[in-house]
Amino acid sequence: MPRLFTRGIYGILLPTKSGNETAPDTVRRDNGRITQMERPIFQPVGTPVEELDTPALVVDLEVMDRNIQTFQSYFKDTSVKARPVVTSHLCPQVARRQLDAGGTNGGIAVTTLGEAEVFAAAGFTDILLANLVVTRAKINRLCALAGQTSVGVAVDSPDNAEQLSQGAAAAGVELRVLVEIEAGMGRCGIAPGPDAVSLAQKVNNLPGLKFQGIMGSVPGPRGEDDPDQHRAKTTANLQVVLDAKEQIEQAGLPVETVSVGGTHCYAQAVGMAGVTEVRAGRYPLMDHRLKSFLPDLEPAAKVLASVISHPMEDMAVLDAGHKAMAPDQGRPILEGVPGGTASRFSAEHGVMELEGDARNKLNPGDKAWLVPYELGACVNQFDYIRATKDGKLEGFWPISARGKLA
Amino acid sequence: MPRLFTRGIYGILLPTKSGNETAPDTVRRDNGRITQMERPIFQPVGTPVEELDTPALVVDLEVMDRNIQTFQSYFKDTSVKARPVVTSHLCPQVARRQLDAGGTNGGIAVTTLGEAEVFAAAGFTDILLANLVVTRAKINRLCALAGQTSVGVAVDSPDNAEQLSQGAAAAGVELRVLVEIEAGMGRCGIAPGPDAVSLAQKVNNLPGLKFQGIMGSVPGPRGEDDPDQHRAKTTANLQVVLDAKEQIEQAGLPVETVSVGGTHCYAQAVGMAGVTEVRAGRYPLMDHRLKSFLPDLEPAAKVLASVISHPMEDMAVLDAGHKAMAPDQGRPILEGVPGGTASRFSAEHGVMELEGDARNKLNPGDKAWLVPYELGACVNQFDYIRATKDGKLEGFWPISARGKLA
Repeated sequence: MPRLFTRGIYGILLPTKSGNETAPDTVRRDNGRITQMERPIFQPVGTPVEELDTPALVVDLEVMDRNIQTFQSYFKDTSVKARPVVTSHLCPQVARRQLDAGGTNGGIAVTTLGEAEVFAAAGFTDILLANLVVTRAKINRLCALAGQTSVGVAVDSPDNAEQLSQGAAAAGVELRVLVEIEAGMGRCGIAPGPDAVSLAQKVNNLPGLKFQGIMGSVPGPRGEDDPDQHRAKTTANLQVVLDAKEQIEQAGLPVETVSVGGTHCYAQAVGMAGVTEVRAGRYPLMDHRLKSFLPDLEPAAKVLASVISHPMEDMAVLDAGHKAMAPDQGRPILEGVPGGTASRFSAEHGVMELEGDARNKLNPGDKAWLVPYELGACVNQFDYIRATKDGKLEGFWPISARGKLA
Repeated sequence: MPRLFTRGIYGILLPTKSGNETAPDTVRRDNGRITQMERPIFQPVGTPVEELDTPALVVDLEVMDRNIQTFQSYFKDTSVKARPVVTSHLCPQVARRQLDAGGTNGGIAVTTLGEAEVFAAAGFTDILLANLVVTRAKINRLCALAGQTSVGVAVDSPDNAEQLSQGAAAAGVELRVLVEIEAGMGRCGIAPGPDAVSLAQKVNNLPGLKFQGIMGSVPGPRGEDDPDQHRAKTTANLQVVLDAKEQIEQAGLPVETVSVGGTHCYAQAVGMAGVTEVRAGRYPLMDHRLKSFLPDLEPAAKVLASVISHPMEDMAVLDAGHKAMAPDQGRPILEGVPGGTASRFSAEHGVMELEGDARNKLNPGDKAWLVPYELGACVNQFDYIRATKDGKLEGFWPISARGKLA
C-alpha cells in the first residue's frame, strides 16, 4: 500500500505527491530551514515615514486629531450627538480618540456582527450594529454578545423582529432595536407609513426587545455632485426619517432615538429638531470623495508607495495597485507632483501619467503619496495603520476589524 | 500631577481620558469580562456548506481539481510548461495541488516580495517574483530570501540591475534575473531593441546576478472583447517577447527562459516556438471574466451570501458588498436565480434586482451564490477559503499571502 501522507515542514501531514513525470519535487517536504518573518516588519518607533515598506497606509495623527476635534465640536452645544461609525477605519485606537474628544454620546456604530465582536473585545460598551442580523447562527452570536455588553441592532421586517425576539428571549438578554427607515440609499429599510408604525409597535411588544427608536442612512455626495443640490437632497432624506418618527409618536409610542448617518449630513442633521444622533465614520481620516464637501477636514490617511519603474517619459509605475487603493468608486489623488495623475490600476501596479515637469519626477525608488478616493475600501486592504507624527513612525495600529465581514 | 495612564483590559496601559463633559466612559478600562472569539468561527468538517457564516469564499475542490487537471494537461506533451501564479489565490494548499498535477516546471510565480516570503516559508523552493524590486530595504529582503531558496526576479532598467547586483554581492547570493519586456500591458518593462539587448548583457556581466532570460505579460480579455480578435492580439503581443529573445541571442547571449503570462494566453503560447513557460494563475478557481474565453474551465470559487432584506418586490439585499466581492472591474454573477441580477454594491451590501419569478425568491435568511468577476480582487478580501466537497466543509484553508502587498 502506498504511503498516503508524509511528514511536512512544521510536522504537518501532507498528501504524498502523486505520480508526476514533469514536475520536480520543489515543495519542500523535509524539515525546511525557512522560518516565516513576522509580517509586517515592525519598524521601530521614530523611523522616518519615507523609510516604511510600501505600499503602506499612513495616518498623520495630528491631522486626524484635528479632524476629530473639528467635527465633534459641531455637536458640543447641541442635543444631537455624534456616534462614531468605526467601520470606516476598523481600528480601536482611532475609536478611542473619538470617544475621548467630546461631542459623542459615548457609543459607536458598526456594520457587521464581526466588527461588533472585535470592538466589544476591545472594551467598547455601547455598540450599535446599524444593520440587519438575519440568520439563526448570527442571531445567536448577537444575543451572546448582548449578554456581555450593550448592543443595539436594526430591523426592517416583522419576521426578523420575531426571530430577534426569540433569540433574545432564549438567551435571556435584551436587544435594543432601531427600526430602519429607508431614506434614499435604496437598499435596506422600511418606508414611513402604517407598516413602519406597525413594525415599531411589534418591536415594542415582543419579549427580549426594547424599542429604542429609528435609524436611517442618507446617501453621501459623489465627486460630481453640486454641493447645494446635495445639501437640499440630504435635508429631504432626513425629513423622511423624521416623518416616520412623527407617525410612530402619533400612534402613542415614544421614539427615544433618531439616528441618522453619515459624516456628510451633520450640518443638516444638527439643525433638524428630532434627530438625536449622527452616525459618522469618515471624518477622522477623511478621503478625497468628501474633501470638497467638508473643506474644514483634511485627509489624514494616505498610502505611501514606491516608484518601481519609469519606463517611458510620460509614465511611472507605483507598487500600489487595486489591492492597495481599492479604486472601485474613484481614482486616488497623487499628491505633490503637479502634472502627475493616477490614471490606471491593475492588481499590484498603479500607473501615473506625467505631463510637463512631472516627467522628470517619480523615478525608480522615489516615494509617492496617494490620497484614497473612498476611505473604507482602502483601509480594508491593510492589516495595520502606520501611525505617524512629524514625519516619524509612532506605532503600528492594528486594523483589528478588517475582514470581519461575517 | 494627574495620572496619565490607567491599567486597561489585558493589563495594557491606556491614556487616561481627557476631560470630557458629554461622553460617558464607555470604553471599558477595568478588567473586562469580554474575550474575543476566535475568528472566523471554525465550523466542523462536514458542516453543510449553506450553514457557513456569510459572506464566505467557498471553493468546490472537485471543480478546482478538474480545472487544474484540464489546464495543466495542455502542457503535458509540449516543451512549454506552466508556472502557477499563486497571486491569484494566495493559498499554499491550492498551489500544492497545482504542482502535484503535472504539466508545470515545478516552480511558482508571485507578484510581491511579501508573497514570496510567505510561499518560501510554506516550503516552495522555486519562486519567480515576476515583478520589479527597487528599494534598498526590499532588495535586502530579496537577497536574504535568495539565501534560503531559489528566487528569480524581473528587471527593466540598468540602474535597478546595478542595485540588485550590489545587494546580491553583499549578501553573497545569486539572483536569477529575467529582463521584463513590455508586451502590451502598458506598465513596467522595456521594449525590444538595442536597450533591451544591452540590459540583458549588463545583467549577464554583473556579479551576483544570473541572466536567465526574459519575461512578458500580455493583457487578458475583458468581457466585451471578441475572442478571435483577442487571440490575434495575444499572438502579436507574445511575438514582441520572442522578438526580444531573438535580438538578445543574435547578440551572442543565450536566453534560457522565455516566460509569458497569464492563463488566457496558453493556447497561443504553447504553439509558438521559443516560449518556455506560461505563468498562469486564474485557472484553478476561475472567474466570470475568463469564463467565456476558457469554456473548458468552470468557476470553482464563489461567495456564499445571505439575504438580509427584501424590502421591495423587485429588490433583495445580500450581506456581500464591495468588501466581499471587490467588484472594481465588473459585477459578480448571481447564480441559480433566473431573473435576478447583481446590480449595485455598497461597502457591506449587495443589491439584487429581481424580475419575474425571481421576485418571490431571495427572502431574508435565504442563501445566494455570487461568482466573482475578477478572482484576485475577490480572494484578497478573505482570510480563509472554505474548502468544500459534495456540499460539505472539508476545511478552512488560510489565504496566507493575503494583504502581503509590501
